[in-house]
Amino acid sequence: VPEAEPSGQTVGQIGEDPLVADVISRYPGAGWLTVGPGDDAAVLDLAGHFPGPLVVSTDTLVEGQDFRKDWSTARDVGVKTAAQNFADIAAMGGRPHTLLISLTTPVDLPAAWARELADGLAAESGRAGAVVAGGDLSAGTELSITGTALGTLSAPHAVLRSGARPGDIVAIAGISGRSAGGWALLLAGHGLLGEAPLQAALARLVDDHRRPRPPYRSGPEAALAGATAMIDTSDGLVRDAERIAHASGVVLDLDPAALQPDADLLAAADLLGEPDPANWVLTGGEDHALLATFPPEATLPPSFRRIGRVLASGSASAVAPAGAESGSGVLLAGKPIIGPGGWRHFA
Amino acid sequence: VPEAEPSGQTVGQIGEDPLVADVISRYPGAGWLTVGPGDDAAVLDLAGHFPGPLVVSTDTLVEGQDFRKDWSTARDVGVKTAAQNFADIAAMGGRPHTLLISLTTPVDLPAAWARELADGLAAESGRAGAVVAGGDLSAGTELSITGTALGTLSAPHAVLRSGARPGDIVAIAGISGRSAGGWALLLAGHGLLGEAPLQAALARLVDDHRRPRPPYRSGPEAALAGATAMIDTSDGLVRDAERIAHASGVVLDLDPAALQPDADLLAAADLLGEPDPANWVLTGGEDHALLATFPPEATLPPSFRRIGRVLASGSASAVAPAGAESGSGVLLAGKPIIGPGGWRHFA
Repeated sequence: VPEAEPSGQTVGQIGEDPLVADVISRYPGAGWLTVGPGDDAAVLDLAGHFPGPLVVSTDTLVEGQDFRKDWSTARDVGVKTAAQNFADIAAMGGRPHTLLISLTTPVDLPAAWARELADGLAAESGRAGAVVAGGDLSAGTELSITGTALGTLSAPHAVLRSGARPGDIVAIAGISGRSAGGWALLLAGHGLLGEAPLQAALARLVDDHRRPRPPYRSGPEAALAGATAMIDTSDGLVRDAERIAHASGVVLDLDPAALQPDADLLAAADLLGEPDPANWVLTGGEDHALLATFPPEATLPPSFRRIGRVLASGSASAVAPAGAESGSGVLLAGKPIIGPGGWRHFA
Repeated sequence: VPEAEPSGQTVGQIGEDPLVADVISRYPGAGWLTVGPGDDAAVLDLAGHFPGPLVVSTDTLVEGQDFRKDWSTARDVGVKTAAQNFADIAAMGGRPHTLLISLTTPVDLPAAWARELADGLAAESGRAGAVVAGGDLSAGTELSITGTALGTLSAPHAVLRSGARPGDIVAIAGISGRSAGGWALLLAGHGLLGEAPLQAALARLVDDHRRPRPPYRSGPEAALAGATAMIDTSDGLVRDAERIAHASGVVLDLDPAALQPDADLLAAADLLGEPDPANWVLTGGEDHALLATFPPEATLPPSFRRIGRVLASGSASAVAPAGAESGSGVLLAGKPIIGPGGWRHFA
């Protein structure tokens, strides 16, 4: 608990350079990290450790929008920041190895919060086989954390959103809807920090919301298995399936039988009086699963399960956005999905 | 002028995906950009274009702290964001080639501002020989922009802050104090957008504040010339010289004769009634010059000018921070500097 820390100092009281030195000390090194955090920039020997095309992505988490300090510990936010960034690398078929972090914070943030954030970043980086190579600290009125993830392709080519072809299999590795279920529990007050332990099922959902665990290895596995398209389901299954559909000019027809809420989600829906927990599965964001398409003859990696098929464009009545092929979109059992929702940042 | 744009739409009215598509269209491609913005991550073929160790750094600019929308155009802010990030790459001896951008913005920001920001990012990237490879867009209450710059070392080794040795020459490439002079003019109301044209000298200072022009090529040139230490002067000459001094366990003795305010700064000081414009030169931040040390026998690259020498630790009376060698610090003509100031984010 940050507030109980003996020193109890804020970021502003400790000051930039001492806080940065403290945070840096929490990050382990790695063979490819020739120069780690603390200088003007980090230096990486990738040729010696990760030969191949470099994959890079950046993602920001904003307090209130992407996390709440009363729902998530600083360590949780660190895990989530790293996971969200590394998932984008995996979604190209890349193996993540390096993370950069820029923290913008009010000066009255407890310094312990910043340290625990670093612990979470280091922990999830470790799970992904990556390290934190550097960062930045800025004063602002709003707490936000920007990560930049670097990785290297294992397969000769990246897996784009635009390669899905009619006849392909639609498959997913990882969870869908569980983060949304956990979020709904927290919103209803059934998962607040410090409350009595929740039933195990509900606690697992809240954990999945607080600390996503993207299946990083499934990304390179999918690429090597011949995946034709792939995306990280950060904004919800249907929303991200639409992105593949529009970029590829095809229709993704999802199979409702393969997208049934699991027992934990059913328990949460029962508790909360949610009539249709399948909405969590279809539209809930922040699961950071990997949604991919494979040629019909491909052998799916064991972590992927089949959830639909790719049809030619024109099979959907949905209106495609400007620039996308007309008639591309997402169907559920061959029928349009009414009000797919999903997490649209500015909608 | 964003507000005069015919459509006049805000970021929130346009929506995330259309705005991202519009911004992306403003970024040119490059041979090393195998997959550009718009997918989960960008893919870079660096081995084929920039073989050598990768250099990476990240930096955030926050409205109010690092820029003001009434003092700088969106294009200025784009230039500054790119410059600040690329300068960190140059300060290691690297050549910048790639930039990632994460924009966090209130939904009522004019969409034209975001587009002009992209134009500034693209322009300064072009000046540096780099491209924008990807980004992220988030909603928040505070406007901030995080850049992550990637570059490649030209010399076999990076130039760290920690390599300065007694006897070395202290030298600088780029300007010092001019950004602070321009900032003081803006603060006094002598450089507001829309006012009558300033005298040329003052306008040049304001321009240097709004759109820093780091001497990117001087970084690799210094590395190849044998520079023993180097830093980007983002926080002021003395403050950043202290960082080299403490990291190297030495004293940097600066020569006041080499650090006289130029004619533009003298004119600004005269106008503003500033008694000691040398303070701008010594403590003003955001010039993004390259401060380096060279062995006494080195031939300085033409863009560097000598401003001091390196002495053994113990020559300074300044108290070094925890972890730094006692007696390391910065002197001016052999004497301690009283109240060096400089830009300390949380001081």
